[in-house]
Amino acid sequence: MSFSLDPRLAADTRPIGELALSRLLLMDDARFPWLVLVPRIVGARELIDLDAADRATLLDEITTVGRAMETLLSPDKLNIAALGNVVPQLHVHVIARFGTDAAWPGPVWGAGTREPYQAEACERLLAGLRAALTHPPAG
Amino acid sequence: MSFSLDPRLAADTRPIGELALSRLLLMDDARFPWLVLVPRIVGARELIDLDAADRATLLDEITTVGRAMETLLSPDKLNIAALGNVVPQLHVHVIARFGTDAAWPGPVWGAGTREPYQAEACERLLAGLRAALTHPPAG
Repeated sequence: MSFSLDPRLAADTRPIGELALSRLLLMDDARFPWLVLVPRIVGARELIDLDAADRATLLDEITTVGRAMETLLSPDKLNIAALGNVVPQLHVHVIARFGTDAAWPGPVWGAGTREPYQAEACERLLAGLRAALTHPPAG
Repeated sequence: MSFSLDPRLAADTRPIGELALSRLLLMDDARFPWLVLVPRIVGARELIDLDAADRATLLDEITTVGRAMETLLSPDKLNIAALGNVVPQLHVHVIARFGTDAAWPGPVWGAGTREPYQAEACERLLAGLRAALTHPPAG
């Protein structure tokens, strides 16, 4: 059985690319710079049920993606979460939060209504993220 | 400068014990079995800013704590998150969620009002957690 992305995740996101373990997605919500990592492991549901090597790789990928967002966006805070109450397929949110954003200081999940990106703003963010991921800062 | 727990975290929780890196706390909210890990690192704010060894240790501790909650409580889902929008001191939530709980399927943060434990229920949960943490399942 091969990996396939949950259709609800697919419907709400745009693909950015493939990391070593995870598919990287952009939540199509212009209110929050919001990435989602989905490990390509069939049936994975809980972060803690991954084997130790996959857990470590996923943490490395979360770190890389979070640092790219910090470099590109200088958020006030990152929110990192594996919830899965609605979509059980294991996925990890990495969200750049700002004191001025639409949900601050509350969580983004369930806050208001998703606002899909305008094409130009989306392309600009994706280009910036791809560049930050390709040339990560040292450390 | 030595580590000290953020007073807001201290006010909302009860101490369970000390792990290798983190102080383990029980959120004093009888609606959700909800643990919080606080790495004893002065000034830590973002998970991704920890050095690689501390990140790995924290992930191990999250895994151990999550497995103890699974063993003891058989939740429908674990929610694992580092948010910190309100309390910037780095802390990681590990929450046992049930399809019948007061916030399902939404997140617990900002949902209704905290309901402190009755003494007996709290002691029972703490005793169960300490036993599950002392005798973790293999794997």
